[in-house]
Amino acid sequence: MADRMVVIGGDAGGMSAAAQARRLRPDLEIVAFERGEFTSYAACGLPYYVGGEVAGRDRLVARTPEKFRAGGIDVRTRHEVLAIDTAARTVEVRDLDTGSTATESYDELVIATGGSGVRPPIPGIDGPGVFDIRTIPDADRIRGAIEAGARRAVVVGGGYIGVEVAEAFVARGLEVTLLEAADQPMLTLDADMAELVTEALNRLGVDVLLGAAVTGFRSEDGHLTAVDTADGSVPADLAVVGLGVRPNSGLARDAGIPVGPTGGIVVDDRQHTPVDGVWAAGDCVESRHRITGMPVVVALGTHANKQGRVVGSNIGGVPSSFGGVLGTAITKVGTTEVARTGLSEREAADTGLDAFAVTADGAVRAHYYPGADEVRVKLVVERGTGRLLGGQIVGGDGAGKRIDVIAAALWAEMDVRDVAGMDLAYAPPFSPVWDPVLVAAGKAVLALDR
Amino acid sequence: MADRMVVIGGDAGGMSAAAQARRLRPDLEIVAFERGEFTSYAACGLPYYVGGEVAGRDRLVARTPEKFRAGGIDVRTRHEVLAIDTAARTVEVRDLDTGSTATESYDELVIATGGSGVRPPIPGIDGPGVFDIRTIPDADRIRGAIEAGARRAVVVGGGYIGVEVAEAFVARGLEVTLLEAADQPMLTLDADMAELVTEALNRLGVDVLLGAAVTGFRSEDGHLTAVDTADGSVPADLAVVGLGVRPNSGLARDAGIPVGPTGGIVVDDRQHTPVDGVWAAGDCVESRHRITGMPVVVALGTHANKQGRVVGSNIGGVPSSFGGVLGTAITKVGTTEVARTGLSEREAADTGLDAFAVTADGAVRAHYYPGADEVRVKLVVERGTGRLLGGQIVGGDGAGKRIDVIAAALWAEMDVRDVAGMDLAYAPPFSPVWDPVLVAAGKAVLALDR
Repeated sequence: MADRMVVIGGDAGGMSAAAQARRLRPDLEIVAFERGEFTSYAACGLPYYVGGEVAGRDRLVARTPEKFRAGGIDVRTRHEVLAIDTAARTVEVRDLDTGSTATESYDELVIATGGSGVRPPIPGIDGPGVFDIRTIPDADRIRGAIEAGARRAVVVGGGYIGVEVAEAFVARGLEVTLLEAADQPMLTLDADMAELVTEALNRLGVDVLLGAAVTGFRSEDGHLTAVDTADGSVPADLAVVGLGVRPNSGLARDAGIPVGPTGGIVVDDRQHTPVDGVWAAGDCVESRHRITGMPVVVALGTHANKQGRVVGSNIGGVPSSFGGVLGTAITKVGTTEVARTGLSEREAADTGLDAFAVTADGAVRAHYYPGADEVRVKLVVERGTGRLLGGQIVGGDGAGKRIDVIAAALWAEMDVRDVAGMDLAYAPPFSPVWDPVLVAAGKAVLALDR
Repeated sequence: MADRMVVIGGDAGGMSAAAQARRLRPDLEIVAFERGEFTSYAACGLPYYVGGEVAGRDRLVARTPEKFRAGGIDVRTRHEVLAIDTAARTVEVRDLDTGSTATESYDELVIATGGSGVRPPIPGIDGPGVFDIRTIPDADRIRGAIEAGARRAVVVGGGYIGVEVAEAFVARGLEVTLLEAADQPMLTLDADMAELVTEALNRLGVDVLLGAAVTGFRSEDGHLTAVDTADGSVPADLAVVGLGVRPNSGLARDAGIPVGPTGGIVVDDRQHTPVDGVWAAGDCVESRHRITGMPVVVALGTHANKQGRVVGSNIGGVPSSFGGVLGTAITKVGTTEVARTGLSEREAADTGLDAFAVTADGAVRAHYYPGADEVRVKLVVERGTGRLLGGQIVGGDGAGKRIDVIAAALWAEMDVRDVAGMDLAYAPPFSPVWDPVLVAAGKAVLALDR
């Protein structure tokens, strides 16, 4: 008798696991339960769907349930898993359309329940005109509000999603205020680099209010009218809450599957939980940070895909492991590209590492070539050893993806002295003779030797 | 008494050495002899000056002789070094304006004589309308020919310079034929990737003739009329020869300073020659290829700058070494970006390595994001060990500089199994969830395990 694989969650982590297992084991029975209507959609693309760069929401769905079914994966949308019995190896599933409940057995279980937007208990947060942006229906509701005539938008939270949604609203012609409780946007950047992001938002016309914790959402006659902070009130027809993502690990926790202090499901590097036959992948799990060695929760499609594939490979009989995360991230604000990887200066200090930072200003192309926009590169380096710990980049066209060079160097645990000599690609349309990453590394080497 | 540093050659290698030594040792006397009129100009920018992207030639000069002099470096342009006496520690210098010759002493000598375009003894190659493109005067002559009414251009040689000049001529509205003796352009790429370059040239309107060795340049009445090959004749008003660069190592060789079989001056990793007090940097030297360990000559401004700085640091009392080269290179043909690093499949075979290659097609952005142009990534991997040996990339906007990730991985001697898991930056405007470099690495891992 063939084994039965059950997947909880039809997005990147779960469906990558299903697809990889399908490739490797044609005999396996694979059933995936998804409580929503969509599978494998690009949550990261939602701000661009709201902004209009992505024309239709169908474009965001990488693979429909029908396609998966044709490929031999029994996807059941609008099916919510209510409980897991790890002793009996069963899950209890409700068909959301009929309301009926059934018990389904598994040999291998993949928990890929994703994450949910953080929604603090702020008065009015569940009222009219206040939206999350985690799902296609969320994005449709936001588009609906704009089409219904919303003119003034407030974005709560200045992280990646907040910044991207602010840009999207500008693209749609809205007046945009971004409220951030901290004293800088993008807390994964150090303050000096985040300042450049604030400037970029201002150039787009976004009103950025820092130190502005939201105290309430006010509405009248079923319409949002304002967002309140301790310092005053911002008139608004529409608000989006982008305060980060929390792992959906309650189902696992209720079943006795260990959940770490981060709130993510505990897995080993094969993405296996401590419970026999139970795997987990994506926004619901803890991952190992390669530099600190500590568990972290990073909600990002690229990790979900990799982790899902690791699960599918292991279930499929090909031993596979996930290499961990560096916290690499990238976004843009208008024409300004923003990226980071590894530890920021603040994170290095929090980790107890003796680190220093250097910052280098340069250009993305040869100074004489058209489009030689400015770029600033910051590197964080361990004092004494010279070990590279992290990097941050803010600059014009072509600046952002340079973070991958730093990520590769971090992945290989390189010394900044080695980084400084690297043979990176040079031609006038692509780089100055000294690539800005090399300039920063060179400065770090000088500082090390001092 | 302070030491005296003499530099032969006022371009990237020599002037980087001078500037770095100046920074570190204020007491040092520094004299630099340059036989031309310019210092530190961007030879790599010349095609873009011809094409018009770079407006004025002054923009190509990173630092003028006057600026160097103001910074305490005694630059003497129009001064040619005729001979080196390593026993007496002197050089013989001719002032090209007055014709007078003088003997100048040195404590530390830096040979940075650069390279010259290869000019085979083809009949007519020294005739009218046949140009090199190595110097600003070369570029001025080419621009002059276009402004004088040249309509039909022939580019001889399909390497980086040839391809860039062909693009420049298209930008100037010329009819362009590119003649390449081999059966592909860009011999540092494998044939399958070079085919994409040919297609990109064709899309620009360049007529690419492969297997077309030039047998002669014909002229009438002091004007070029045609370029001949074994297969026929191509009408031409203007021809540019881009057949590679040969190190200018004759001066060193005549002085008994060792020159390797590559034609480049022999240096150790401090850029010191085997002769006491004699250093060398830039296009005139041999460099160590980091993968093969063999000496190679790579004429590229980025190496010249790094090597010059190494020389200046060592003379300045800060021990420094050059890390070698990977042969990383990048260019563009219209909107197609082309890059390579490490060993090609052909080079790996020539080196006697048991290697295989994988090729992956992807997109430069999320499939649903505007501008998700195609990209092809090829990786060369050692069989058995999984050691990454090289990479090649051809694709749309943002494809080329991805080569730096592969270069960083090569620099760190990474296994392709580690490359496949790297935490590279993902967001829809910058990359698909699986960056094409990771897709290629993943394919290589599958091929390894097979």
